[in-house]
Amino acid sequence: MSNGFRFLGERLIAKTSFLELARRHYVVSEGRWVRREVIRHPGAVAVVPVIAGDVVLISQYRVAIAQELLEIPAGKCDEPGEDPETTAVRECEEEIGYRPDRLTLLHTFYTTPGFTDELIWVYLAEELESVESRPKGIEEERAEVVRLPIDEALRRVRNGEIRDAKTLIGLLALEKEWSA
Amino acid sequence: MSNGFRFLGERLIAKTSFLELARRHYVVSEGRWVRREVIRHPGAVAVVPVIAGDVVLISQYRVAIAQELLEIPAGKCDEPGEDPETTAVRECEEEIGYRPDRLTLLHTFYTTPGFTDELIWVYLAEELESVESRPKGIEEERAEVVRLPIDEALRRVRNGEIRDAKTLIGLLALEKEWSA
Repeated sequence: MSNGFRFLGERLIAKTSFLELARRHYVVSEGRWVRREVIRHPGAVAVVPVIAGDVVLISQYRVAIAQELLEIPAGKCDEPGEDPETTAVRECEEEIGYRPDRLTLLHTFYTTPGFTDELIWVYLAEELESVESRPKGIEEERAEVVRLPIDEALRRVRNGEIRDAKTLIGLLALEKEWSA
Repeated sequence: MSNGFRFLGERLIAKTSFLELARRHYVVSEGRWVRREVIRHPGAVAVVPVIAGDVVLISQYRVAIAQELLEIPAGKCDEPGEDPETTAVRECEEEIGYRPDRLTLLHTFYTTPGFTDELIWVYLAEELESVESRPKGIEEERAEVVRLPIDEALRRVRNGEIRDAKTLIGLLALEKEWSA
């Protein structure tokens, strides 16, 4: 349903290692058109890894906000349309050194649909088997694995220490699973 | 804490009506540097408006995903550093035609810190007084106000119909307030 937005065309404005910024034009009514800029993203997957009542997070430096941020493991799809469970297993192995044998989809969501099509799948990851971690890129190499009792992670949700959208969604969903 | 990322400089690659795409360089160790692209965003505020056991959502067309999306009311800060409560009241008035007399901060989070500094404040909005709505922009003009019993909104969280990050966070947090 295009809700009366008739796509006229677009021009690629800029391209980064994984994003495309496009300028689009739409006719919205007789004689009226609008311009909208959108960022194309390949999509990403995040996991809430649970081991013996603990959840495994990572603390990594994020240049966009010039801060360390405590997050659940996550990563971009290698290409748009990659099976999200494949991405989930890979990112879990790479970032925390565990291979999950059981994945349960918790939520699928657009991170910020006002300007990007980025879609994130968040899985609960269980039955984790230890493997060698294979950090990719300097942020991951320097990331610190932070294993917390679930109650402590949920305390950090409540007190505002968790400030990453996918991590909030993953932990709030875990809390519901846990208390159900 | 820069975690060993020493900022060298940046170049503005592109600018849209509200975003800036910058290319930055960092020295990460002796003789090693990396390039990172980041999107600057002015920040945004979202509200979970509750009236007599109902929550008020809006359904609007999002060009970035070429779909209608069911969301809580939200909007960008007019300028970086605008008091978020001011933004909250304005967006609530503009988008659904209610002025909230009581705002409670539920969460503050980065939408997708892997590439942007966008920060969203989500408030619970209560004691709502009816005012004239003042939609801004074609998407808002055509948006549909959707008032749902809280239980129905939470059912849509559970069954995957709610696919917007800020709306998931707002409604999952509301559920906790409600059941507390």
